[in-house]
Amino acid sequence: MRLTRVLVPDLRAGTVVLRGPEAHHLRDVLRVTAGAQVEAFDGRGEVAEGRVVATDQGGVVLELSAPRPSQAESPLTLTVAVALLKGDKLAGVVRQCTELGAARFVLLLTRHADVTSLSAAKRQRLERVAEEAARQSERARVPTIEGPVPLSDLAWEGAAVVADPRAEASLANAIGGSAARERLTLITGPEGGLAPNEVDDLVGRGAIAASLGPRILRAETAPVALTAVALLGWPS
Amino acid sequence: MRLTRVLVPDLRAGTVVLRGPEAHHLRDVLRVTAGAQVEAFDGRGEVAEGRVVATDQGGVVLELSAPRPSQAESPLTLTVAVALLKGDKLAGVVRQCTELGAARFVLLLTRHADVTSLSAAKRQRLERVAEEAARQSERARVPTIEGPVPLSDLAWEGAAVVADPRAEASLANAIGGSAARERLTLITGPEGGLAPNEVDDLVGRGAIAASLGPRILRAETAPVALTAVALLGWPS
Repeated sequence: MRLTRVLVPDLRAGTVVLRGPEAHHLRDVLRVTAGAQVEAFDGRGEVAEGRVVATDQGGVVLELSAPRPSQAESPLTLTVAVALLKGDKLAGVVRQCTELGAARFVLLLTRHADVTSLSAAKRQRLERVAEEAARQSERARVPTIEGPVPLSDLAWEGAAVVADPRAEASLANAIGGSAARERLTLITGPEGGLAPNEVDDLVGRGAIAASLGPRILRAETAPVALTAVALLGWPS
Repeated sequence: MRLTRVLVPDLRAGTVVLRGPEAHHLRDVLRVTAGAQVEAFDGRGEVAEGRVVATDQGGVVLELSAPRPSQAESPLTLTVAVALLKGDKLAGVVRQCTELGAARFVLLLTRHADVTSLSAAKRQRLERVAEEAARQSERARVPTIEGPVPLSDLAWEGAAVVADPRAEASLANAIGGSAARERLTLITGPEGGLAPNEVDDLVGRGAIAASLGPRILRAETAPVALTAVALLGWPS
């Protein structure tokens, strides 16, 4: 039986009173009562064991131990930089890549995209999906949803790999470099792909172009595959 | 502009007449006309260049070159053995793993599964999804959907890797063995996970138990992550 997980942005040892949606969810949906054990996480990488002390209409009172860094977060800080996609496809990308361990998402405006903006409602939905996926996958960090930014304005620290069908380097060779083991940004395009000069511009700025092999991945599968290889593909 | 891809199970050089749904799709949906270039694939790994010679209510007539093995199929014959899952989750697994290059799916009956059978309609849906995904990803092989079989009856050639949160071996170490580079079976459980003695039984029969790391993947994400690492995670 897994512990109930509680998002407590203001995580600290001692007594914490939850109000609002998180308290409602614990009290009225999960029906936790005084004495229940929980795991609190702050959304930024720390966790604390806790116990429910009281619940009433005013909120839920927790008693927490001292926060500590979660063991569930990867030492690789991974950014998924993905073009805006049609419909609800980004929700699937955010959900799967969050489970796998992505640290943040940066949404991109690209040449061949059919979608050129992100509504406030869609952004909230993506943030909710990231929070749900972090909670379910027992992570301590909730990835942020940033952008959209024009691809030409995308900046990164560490290594960056861009998926490009024309590339000769395999994904494994591109990600395997030591520079890509601490901070890595994975860049993928929209349904229509990145334009060749968009890729060339990224390569000119230091990104490594990598082939995903001879099979064409959909725009919503490519970032998931890249993230899986980056976070699970190396001996440890 | 990508070539129109046509599934021709009876692939051979010369004149081929298509009837039924494939002809209808070409003629009435894609509106191809005489002279159009196509790529025909047989669903079992071969492709042939072709040209539409004529279309009428009786069918679509193609003139095909000699079939040859597709370059899009992986040298690794990968079986995704996945427990029956609730709702439409298997469709997502079949779609993503087909894009990535899986050769076949074997559906499993497991201890903690909430679903214990596959309706004829659901099987047809999964077969349709596999065909669509093979077509879109420019594959020549349409993965088969086999089972469901009890997990204890699952047989495999080559190596098998079972996802197990208790395992000490990393996924990369488990898949990295040379036995896993030609024929590999990846085994994942239902929403409730595999029972420890189900994993022990597989290990007793030669499977390697591998951890997917400290983050809990949903039952529908785990097979996709395993498939991505197996097919894209190695230098080439």
